[in-house]
Amino acid sequence: MRIGGIEAGGTKFVCGVGNEQGEVVDSISFPTEDPETTLGKAIAYFKEKSVDAIGIGSFGPIDIRPGSPTYGYVTTTPKPGWGNVDFLGTLRREFDVPYGWNTDVNAAAFGEAAWGAAKGLKSCLYYTVGTGIGIGVFLEGRLVQGLVHPEGGHMLTRRHPGDDFAGLCPYHGDCLEGMASGPAIEARWNVKGHELPSNHPAWEMEAYYIAQSITGAVLLNSPEKVILGGGVMQQSQLFPLIREAVKANLNGYVSASEIVERMDEYIVPPGLGQQAGLCGAFALGLAALQSQVPSL
Amino acid sequence: MRIGGIEAGGTKFVCGVGNEQGEVVDSISFPTEDPETTLGKAIAYFKEKSVDAIGIGSFGPIDIRPGSPTYGYVTTTPKPGWGNVDFLGTLRREFDVPYGWNTDVNAAAFGEAAWGAAKGLKSCLYYTVGTGIGIGVFLEGRLVQGLVHPEGGHMLTRRHPGDDFAGLCPYHGDCLEGMASGPAIEARWNVKGHELPSNHPAWEMEAYYIAQSITGAVLLNSPEKVILGGGVMQQSQLFPLIREAVKANLNGYVSASEIVERMDEYIVPPGLGQQAGLCGAFALGLAALQSQVPSL
Repeated sequence: MRIGGIEAGGTKFVCGVGNEQGEVVDSISFPTEDPETTLGKAIAYFKEKSVDAIGIGSFGPIDIRPGSPTYGYVTTTPKPGWGNVDFLGTLRREFDVPYGWNTDVNAAAFGEAAWGAAKGLKSCLYYTVGTGIGIGVFLEGRLVQGLVHPEGGHMLTRRHPGDDFAGLCPYHGDCLEGMASGPAIEARWNVKGHELPSNHPAWEMEAYYIAQSITGAVLLNSPEKVILGGGVMQQSQLFPLIREAVKANLNGYVSASEIVERMDEYIVPPGLGQQAGLCGAFALGLAALQSQVPSL
Repeated sequence: MRIGGIEAGGTKFVCGVGNEQGEVVDSISFPTEDPETTLGKAIAYFKEKSVDAIGIGSFGPIDIRPGSPTYGYVTTTPKPGWGNVDFLGTLRREFDVPYGWNTDVNAAAFGEAAWGAAKGLKSCLYYTVGTGIGIGVFLEGRLVQGLVHPEGGHMLTRRHPGDDFAGLCPYHGDCLEGMASGPAIEARWNVKGHELPSNHPAWEMEAYYIAQSITGAVLLNSPEKVILGGGVMQQSQLFPLIREAVKANLNGYVSASEIVERMDEYIVPPGLGQQAGLCGAFALGLAALQSQVPSL
């Protein structure tokens, strides 16, 4: 089987072809420009590839409610030109194959559950911490959709005692994304995050906010794995700081051995590394294909 | 069909018999004493009832992980005598029927989805705000279980600007339960909540904390309905305060019409009223029965 995948980010698109083991057979990447140009490039790529299905993990907000008149659209995004764009329909008009369609972070969570750090588990959360913050939610063997789709990056936070930064979110000011995204780090310290030394107090503060969100999400949803990806999480010194802070926050209340004894295996980087997004798109495409062929 | 239900609370047990429409045919209630006495009374009640299945929604923490050696146990509860008690096994030894077993709040969420305020929906959250705070999580048509089970009542909160109350939670101090449970209201104001006038500032503060948790849970899980039950929520003046605060918190970010236009129908009291817990237990029992008879 040949599964097409699109990791549609606000900055760049990655298109690829994978197999049913989630292995990348081929891929290309190009900057995200206006919809016509960008989707045109994606279509040109798949023209030559004869894929059996296509999975798309997209930046958003997007409409993922089956039956909605704007299902498959990018909806109210502030990204110029992309508001109210029929992403999925544009592809459908070119290729008559089953489609998987979800948010970028839900796709990554799905890929990690299929082939990565949450393989074999019924649940995980996938955080991306970068230009923005998103949380993919996979529970009871399913991606959570609901009213719209998870937007956990905007959960409200308790302020770090030593932090007087106002926060960058245009909607909420000091929500998680407003306080802990890459641009928030840069605005708070007047230097790009990757230029800060690994023992700079910025990282303890960053860990404080991310850990607070993880604590709430673990209490609410009890996921079996928490996976942290995105550009900011390339700062690997964050992992032990976050694990310690989550443990301190929970303070023994959740007595599962995964948390009390094996925290190093509970809060982890993506098993699929930088390919979590693209492989997640493959996983969506594969699931769409399999749901059309019940005997698989 | 005759479905048995047990709403097992830390203060009282309700046992009953319902039909497949979730209607209560018969019920009794008695105080929660030691496990032997209390489970003995439940067993004595069902001896005469010839039920086809039994559903149990229990106080916790409990073990709901299928395959776990202590599946069916009340685990680390501080309630004297109830730690490490084989609740489900004690019933099983008496009645050879299918069993549903979950937390009290998950059961209530399930009942509301079957016959109450979330009827026909694939998702809802059920809050109980009383002696403690619990959040039942029903998403994608399934109750969320995961690593242990949802314990959202202990999510961390941002402090109300006018509040210097330390919080009552022995684990987390000023988590949601520590700041907004019935005992927290009483400790903060030195008077029982139901003795405070409905225009007392206590209620705006209470709404602030509950709304903050709902905001986070709506962002993370995107539920189609949020249902608020429990003793504290008998103060009906809380509902408009909570709805306004959630809307202000979200600040237009989640543009679903359910939130922007129909908030009065989005955050609601239990459709099953005081019977949400018992009917939830029936729904668990009915689901257990149906999963054994796939043709139903």
